[in-house]
Amino acid sequence: MSNNTCRWGILGSAGIARKNWQSIRNSGNGTLVGVASRSIERAQSYIDECQSHVSYPEPPRAFGSYEEMVESPDIDALYIPLPTGLRKQWAIRAAQAGKHVLCEKPCGSDVAELEEILEACKEAGVQFMDGVMFMHSRRLDKIREILEDGDSIGRIRRINTLFSFCAPEEFLTGDIRMNSDLEPLGALGDLGWYNLRFTLWVMNYEMPKAVTGRLLNASGREDSPSLVPTEFSGELLFEGDISAGFYCSFLTEHQQLATISGTKGNLRLDDFVLPYFGNELAFTLNNAEFSQEVCDFHMKRFERRIAVEEYSDSHPTAQETNLFRNFGDLVIGGTPDPVWGDIALKTQKIMMACVESARLGGEPVQVL
Amino acid sequence: MSNNTCRWGILGSAGIARKNWQSIRNSGNGTLVGVASRSIERAQSYIDECQSHVSYPEPPRAFGSYEEMVESPDIDALYIPLPTGLRKQWAIRAAQAGKHVLCEKPCGSDVAELEEILEACKEAGVQFMDGVMFMHSRRLDKIREILEDGDSIGRIRRINTLFSFCAPEEFLTGDIRMNSDLEPLGALGDLGWYNLRFTLWVMNYEMPKAVTGRLLNASGREDSPSLVPTEFSGELLFEGDISAGFYCSFLTEHQQLATISGTKGNLRLDDFVLPYFGNELAFTLNNAEFSQEVCDFHMKRFERRIAVEEYSDSHPTAQETNLFRNFGDLVIGGTPDPVWGDIALKTQKIMMACVESARLGGEPVQVL
Repeated sequence: MSNNTCRWGILGSAGIARKNWQSIRNSGNGTLVGVASRSIERAQSYIDECQSHVSYPEPPRAFGSYEEMVESPDIDALYIPLPTGLRKQWAIRAAQAGKHVLCEKPCGSDVAELEEILEACKEAGVQFMDGVMFMHSRRLDKIREILEDGDSIGRIRRINTLFSFCAPEEFLTGDIRMNSDLEPLGALGDLGWYNLRFTLWVMNYEMPKAVTGRLLNASGREDSPSLVPTEFSGELLFEGDISAGFYCSFLTEHQQLATISGTKGNLRLDDFVLPYFGNELAFTLNNAEFSQEVCDFHMKRFERRIAVEEYSDSHPTAQETNLFRNFGDLVIGGTPDPVWGDIALKTQKIMMACVESARLGGEPVQVL
Repeated sequence: MSNNTCRWGILGSAGIARKNWQSIRNSGNGTLVGVASRSIERAQSYIDECQSHVSYPEPPRAFGSYEEMVESPDIDALYIPLPTGLRKQWAIRAAQAGKHVLCEKPCGSDVAELEEILEACKEAGVQFMDGVMFMHSRRLDKIREILEDGDSIGRIRRINTLFSFCAPEEFLTGDIRMNSDLEPLGALGDLGWYNLRFTLWVMNYEMPKAVTGRLLNASGREDSPSLVPTEFSGELLFEGDISAGFYCSFLTEHQQLATISGTKGNLRLDDFVLPYFGNELAFTLNNAEFSQEVCDFHMKRFERRIAVEEYSDSHPTAQETNLFRNFGDLVIGGTPDPVWGDIALKTQKIMMACVESARLGGEPVQVL
């Protein structure tokens, strides 16, 4: 760190990382030192392309190897969008080199991998966080306020999430997410991580007693050792008969629907992961009223739309910006917050229990 | 039948039947001859109350026993809102007496019961239909048009339905739906019937290969021989990896959400069972667009609201009115249409397979 600025490196030149090029610039407490790829030309062309779109006063440097970036003394924190199959190795090396770790999801291929990463971060005294952007949206604060007001939703009974996109044929046959060595959890890891995290957030990180999972579809790239989940559904069962259903898929067109239903009403978002572009983030609160007057039965809509300001010219993707700002604050503060690792580990544990349930034909599996 | 009018009797004075008092009057091809209760006073006070609200030119007669109504020569069709535990007996007696049968749901306590009812109707040459009102909404025609246009939704991949209301304490401890002799299927029979029927309708009555079910909560009135399902979730698995999740509950406040998701978009209704009161019935069609320009990732909302005219002063509850008109047309036409019995039987078979899956701890059960 220098002058209260978190100095970032992007470890890998995955397409998803482009989104965060400007998030770091907009964060207010960070700067981007460089981008690493296994080829310096690739890193440079990535930088040139992004720089021409959103420029840093001092252009980030190209690193021709991951090692070089991990060892670089002028970098404080690494954003690691590498494939899951490569992530553990580099996250641990980064931590051991004293770098703070912002890790894309799913953090590990299994629970043990993530535990190893977290142990390495703990030992090195560096911050760990996963890249779930919606966790940093101000909309969540407003939703929590509603969930806790006692009247709008009442006691929570059911959470339901649907998150999907319809991958083109070239994705299903060529994308790295379709190789089981690189992304063994497929759509469950890539999309289901958000379903599970949102559910956990709603439940204030209470763990489910048991989960069920169902592999609805799997497929794989020609070079894939085994099939990769492309569509998955499951259910989380909490104390007090609270339950949560989820569905994620690479085969169904864009949807990101979340419903939180309680004893007094329900709350709905149709863009819970990647918000629709605009000047605000909204959700609806629904408290339908049923009335009967002798023979007249009326169901009356009572819907309120609640919004928070979000987008602006200087914060075109505010939740991502907040993610990098929040991470930077922790780095600058000097005391890692273990809660982010705990939340990621809970997410991973639930996910792996869902996978185990699917393997067993859908029977309930306890989350240990 | 006389003068192309279907002459109705209401067998039982359940609260739900009040809704249909005016549906018969508004149907245009029917009239209400009488209401039967086990006490003639109760039948008369029911009639007086409804008649003061929505009056028939000639007031319906009170029948002091179900037998009397079943044998009455001036009645063509019976609407049977009796509890499920009593329904088979009276539906069969009605059919044997030559009465057409409009039966509330769930039609039977199990598949065999409904098969017996349908056999009796077939032998007697009378019409059978269950009382699922939304099947008669003109909104469904519009939804079918969208589902089949090839572009709006594409190929269907996932159907999701949530239907619930939050029953007051006196319901859970006192309502007949909380006695397992009368309503052994509880919330699954009362609400889940709609979830399953809507799913079947979307799938053009194709049967699922297998289903799973989970009993999330059960409770019972003091006099109930066993517990009654109060909350239930399940999943239907169709050919081609098409799947449908559903949730129904007496413990979660009003919601009636249906989502049909395909390879090109999704369609949503938030009042799929009992439409919100108003002059039209609507649904939304969602085709979000994702775009990336170098570092800018935008999810753009593209939502269309599609509505059909529904309510008017003379048709305050149009789908119910349509139900009675359509049934009356079949009675007047003189040739029973077996498709309505087939659809009810499919619904019952899927429901019982869900119950069986729940009994087995959630494992997939084939639908026979």
